Amino acid sequence: MNSSSASNEASAIGAATPTLADVQKAGERIAPHIHRTPIMRCTAIDEMVGASVHFKCENLQKVGAFKFRGACNTLLSLDETEIANGIATHSSGNHGAAVALAAQLRGTSSVVVMPKNTSAVKQAAVAHYGARIVHCEPNEASRTKTLEDILESEQRTLVHPFDDVRVIAGQGTAALEFIEQVPDLDIMIAPVGGGGLLSGTATVVTALSPKTKIIGAEPAGADDTYRSFRAGRILPVGTPDTIADGLRTTVGQLTFPIISRHVADIVTVSEEAIVEAMRITWQRSKLIIEASAAVPLAALLEGGVDARGARIGIILSGGNVDLDALPW
Amino acid sequence: MNSSSASNEASAIGAATPTLADVQKAGERIAPHIHRTPIMRCTAIDEMVGASVHFKCENLQKVGAFKFRGACNTLLSLDETEIANGIATHSSGNHGAAVALAAQLRGTSSVVVMPKNTSAVKQAAVAHYGARIVHCEPNEASRTKTLEDILESEQRTLVHPFDDVRVIAGQGTAALEFIEQVPDLDIMIAPVGGGGLLSGTATVVTALSPKTKIIGAEPAGADDTYRSFRAGRILPVGTPDTIADGLRTTVGQLTFPIISRHVADIVTVSEEAIVEAMRITWQRSKLIIEASAAVPLAALLEGGVDARGARIGIILSGGNVDLDALPW
Repeated sequence: MNSSSASNEASAIGAATPTLADVQKAGERIAPHIHRTPIMRCTAIDEMVGASVHFKCENLQKVGAFKFRGACNTLLSLDETEIANGIATHSSGNHGAAVALAAQLRGTSSVVVMPKNTSAVKQAAVAHYGARIVHCEPNEASRTKTLEDILESEQRTLVHPFDDVRVIAGQGTAALEFIEQVPDLDIMIAPVGGGGLLSGTATVVTALSPKTKIIGAEPAGADDTYRSFRAGRILPVGTPDTIADGLRTTVGQLTFPIISRHVADIVTVSEEAIVEAMRITWQRSKLIIEASAAVPLAALLEGGVDARGARIGIILSGGNVDLDALPW
Repeated sequence: MNSSSASNEASAIGAATPTLADVQKAGERIAPHIHRTPIMRCTAIDEMVGASVHFKCENLQKVGAFKFRGACNTLLSLDETEIANGIATHSSGNHGAAVALAAQLRGTSSVVVMPKNTSAVKQAAVAHYGARIVHCEPNEASRTKTLEDILESEQRTLVHPFDDVRVIAGQGTAALEFIEQVPDLDIMIAPVGGGGLLSGTATVVTALSPKTKIIGAEPAGADDTYRSFRAGRILPVGTPDTIADGLRTTVGQLTFPIISRHVADIVTVSEEAIVEAMRITWQRSKLIIEASAAVPLAALLEGGVDARGARIGIILSGGNVDLDALPW
């Protein structure tokens, strides 16, 4: 494996599409280390959207986000030579914390490249789990260059935030549990940034619950997947403008084909609806979720998903919030 | 039953101390209407206090607080003549919402006397569940007078916030579930205001898990139970000064003897520790709890309870918070 380049890494992993078996194997591999997160319901929200909504609480996952599933599966899949010099990644926050904890678990070191304007809470979490943080400028070029320099000079192994079958398979385990906990969902909605969660979800749901419609929800201010889905090819995000900081990334080379094939629709939501959905979830369900996790409920509130009378599953992707900088 | 006076009501209910059987009967009576709330754990908090802490999530109960248990048990225990003209109560918030919803369930009307400075969120909840709100001045004399006037003029039945065996038995059902969910707790801590939750908890734990030490946690700014416990008689709260608005009441005539007999200790906590415990719970466990619910964890953080290495149970009493007026 060539650890010096993100694109080489992506092409080096072999099979570019995880199978249901990959997700199931990932589920067994990570089971001793992750939380089987609960399903929550909220009568007030059901009444508000006219549907029965089931929330899969990945905000209660270790490190406070589903990202630990993919990071954990990847770290546990690496061989001794791959972890000898430690691993590295870039992240706006949750993936970084997830990789740091997974590296700790595997007994190796981690470096996380973070834009220097990343929220203090997310930086603190990454540091708390033992990673070394290296700052970059808040743009893609600086991030890529900084990470490549570290991979090369320190001979570390890349753990990509989403474009890696092991990461996608790991994220898919949330849907695997979800289907076991709540069979017969009419619709499952996941937020989409780089597409790791959505493509992992699609892999599982298509195979095990083909009647369940899979929908990706995305901020209108970072609507690359929405546009790409319609164009049939990846159209980059440009300058993202959304409070949902986990969803500012462009959809991936590996995740996009899976999403194109299996997802029924991508819907976009306004910033106002994201903040409203986040606030409603806090107020009524008493769960702390971050803005990115509020995007699927925002789609229900804005009517982008026709949910009337349906059994809806929503993956609450994370709960890491700066309590000193709330959006209301 | 004489519905015209709170004190008559208290003495008219006959047996002044609920038994374990009363709590068990209450549990069966309310089971179809309440949530069996989950137990949550949080590694970060365990590390912080050096104990294994189990949270009983009554913030996820209907109306967002344990209060629905007592209100539901009481409303379901009243006979047809008692509910003919509806019921009435006074409340700073959660009991009012609980009574309103329980009255709706029983098909009768409710009036809730609330101090006019009660938070907008709590007033909105009470109104949402269909109660008529009558404002009083924020002092005990005005509250008592206003409520007595309504009980008399409208011939309504009082549902006391805590000094009623049916209410105490209802609140005790939280501990009944807790012991089933987590046996062998070394210590169980509940916040104490009027003492309904703590006395109900004591009734159950003493009978079913006598090795478990029961501790009441109270804000130093409303330390009537702490002082009363030491004096052996009820010493009123005076002017309470605490953010924990559910705990500003003086301990009750019925609840105090139960607490005196069965509770191992009452500990007090500072306002700073309450806010810190609330914030830590939000940040680390991703659960929204109100200030009153943070008081037991505050006692662990401040060292008022010697918890090292122990199995601790904490009842998170409620989660109703004004998101526009957070204490940080």
